[in-house]
Amino acid sequence: MTSTQQASEFDRGIALAARAGEPGCYEGSLDPGWQIAGGINGGLLLATIGNALRDTFSAHEHPDPLAVSAFYLSASRPGAATVRTEVLRRGRSMSTGTASLLQVADGAEVERIRATATYGDLGGLPADVHSAPEAPNLPPPERCVPSDLAPEDFRSMASILDRLDLRLDPDCVGWALGEPSGRGMLQGWLRLADGREPDPLMLLLAVDALPPVTFDLGVMGWTPTLELTAYVRAVPAPGWLRVRISTSHFAGGFLEEDAEVWDSTGRLVAQSRQLARAALAR
Amino acid sequence: MTSTQQASEFDRGIALAARAGEPGCYEGSLDPGWQIAGGINGGLLLATIGNALRDTFSAHEHPDPLAVSAFYLSASRPGAATVRTEVLRRGRSMSTGTASLLQVADGAEVERIRATATYGDLGGLPADVHSAPEAPNLPPPERCVPSDLAPEDFRSMASILDRLDLRLDPDCVGWALGEPSGRGMLQGWLRLADGREPDPLMLLLAVDALPPVTFDLGVMGWTPTLELTAYVRAVPAPGWLRVRISTSHFAGGFLEEDAEVWDSTGRLVAQSRQLARAALAR
Repeated sequence: MTSTQQASEFDRGIALAARAGEPGCYEGSLDPGWQIAGGINGGLLLATIGNALRDTFSAHEHPDPLAVSAFYLSASRPGAATVRTEVLRRGRSMSTGTASLLQVADGAEVERIRATATYGDLGGLPADVHSAPEAPNLPPPERCVPSDLAPEDFRSMASILDRLDLRLDPDCVGWALGEPSGRGMLQGWLRLADGREPDPLMLLLAVDALPPVTFDLGVMGWTPTLELTAYVRAVPAPGWLRVRISTSHFAGGFLEEDAEVWDSTGRLVAQSRQLARAALAR
Repeated sequence: MTSTQQASEFDRGIALAARAGEPGCYEGSLDPGWQIAGGINGGLLLATIGNALRDTFSAHEHPDPLAVSAFYLSASRPGAATVRTEVLRRGRSMSTGTASLLQVADGAEVERIRATATYGDLGGLPADVHSAPEAPNLPPPERCVPSDLAPEDFRSMASILDRLDLRLDPDCVGWALGEPSGRGMLQGWLRLADGREPDPLMLLLAVDALPPVTFDLGVMGWTPTLELTAYVRAVPAPGWLRVRISTSHFAGGFLEEDAEVWDSTGRLVAQSRQLARAALAR
C-alpha cells in the first residue's frame, strides 16, 4: 500500500499491509495518536477502511471513494487491526464492496466496523456544476479559535487534536465558555497539523474530525456514532478545508449530524450524515 | 412473516416467507405493481429488506429499523427474489446486521442490493424532543396536485403511482408544465392508496416514493440511486404523511437527495439521504 506522502502522520495512521496469500486482507496497527475519549476517532477509522478499499479497487481503475457507509459495532482500541474487503460488483465506471475492521479482544476476533462503499474515479467526472452550497464565510484562520486553547482535561482525552490544525469560527465556540448558541452548528478551518495536503481519503477523516455538534446545544458528553455515510464529491485542492457540521433533529436520545466540507477554492468536496446517540440536555 | 395488515397492497408487496431449514433466508416475489421505469421502486425494495431484518431481529426484541443503508448494485425486476440476512452484533438495546436481495438472471444468482441496518425498539425511546425541523406548511390535500394528473406516458412507466395517494404542493409542480422552479425541492402529502396506515417499514418506502427532485431542476430523466441511508426516528401516527425532498449539490453527474417525513401530528418520523446519478441539464 504505497503512498506518495508516507511520511505524514495521517498516512502512517491509515497505513496497512496486504496479508500474504490472502487477497483483500490487510493488517495494520491503530495509532494511539488518533484517540478520542479512549477510542480511535471514527473518521480516522473510516479513512483506514477507505485505504484498504482503495487498494482493492485500484486494480479496476476505481481508486476514489464516492460513497462510504459505516456501521460502528464496537469501540476500536489502539493496537493491531485487520481489514477484510470483499468485492460485490465490478462495474465499468464504479465498483462496490464491503470492508470489515476487526481486532482481537479477550482472545477473540471482534468486528469493530462494517462498511460498504462504492468507488470510482473522481478525476474522470464531468466538470459541470449545476448547483452547490456556498462555502461559509469565516474569519481568516489566524482570527479563529485553535483547538490547542481547549481545556487540558479535554485535550488529554483527545490526542487527535495534536494531529489536526482546527480553527473554529469564534461565533461557534460559546459552549467552551458555558454559553452554547443553541443553533446546533459548528464550523471552522481544518488541515493536518504536519502540512499533509487533503485528498479523498483525508476527507473521510474531515467529516468526523470536529467536536460533537451537541456541544453547541449545551450537551457536553460524547456522542457515539451508530452509522455514518460520506459522499466524496470531488478531489480537494491543496490548502485549508472549511468544515461545517449541523443537526436539525435531536430527540429520543438520538441525533443526526450532517457535515459539509469545502476545499480552498470554495468547492464542495464532501458531504456526510451520521446517526449518533446522546444523552439529552438537562 | 405475519402481519396485522396482510391484506394491504403494501404488505403483499413486501411479503416474504422464511425458507425452511435456512435461518435468516427469506423468499418472495417482487410485485410488478411497484415498478418505476422498468425496475422495482427503491423504497419498496428497502421496505422488503427491512421486513426480512424485522423478522430476524424481532426475536431479540429489536423490531424497528433505526438506520438502514442500502447500496443498489443492479436493477431489480418483477419476479422471484431471495433475501439473506446475517446478524453482525446483538446488543442490549440495538442489533446490527446485513441483508442481501438476490434474483436469478440468465441462470445465475445476481445481487441487487446490499444493505446494512441497525434495529431497536422505537417505542422504548425516551419521549424528549430537544430540537426538530418543523413540518412544511402545505395546502390541504384536496387543494394539492394528485399524481393521477400525471401524463399517461409517465404513468404507464410508473405502476407504483396506483399504489400511492400522493398530493404534491401546487407550488412544486411547475416542472409538469415545463416551468421547473430551479429550487431543487418537492413536497407533498403521502399515504397508501388502499388506506393502510404508516408504520416504520412503510417509512422506508416513503423516503423514496416521490418523483426525482431533479424534475424541479428541469432534468426530466431517471436518476438511479447508488446508495440510500434512512433513519427512522419515531413510530408514525396514523394518517397522512408530509414528505419533503431536496438537493443542494448537483455536480459531476451526481446529486444528493435528502428526504424528511413528518406524521399527521407534525412529528419528524424519518430522514434519508441518497446519492444518485443524473445527466446534467442542457
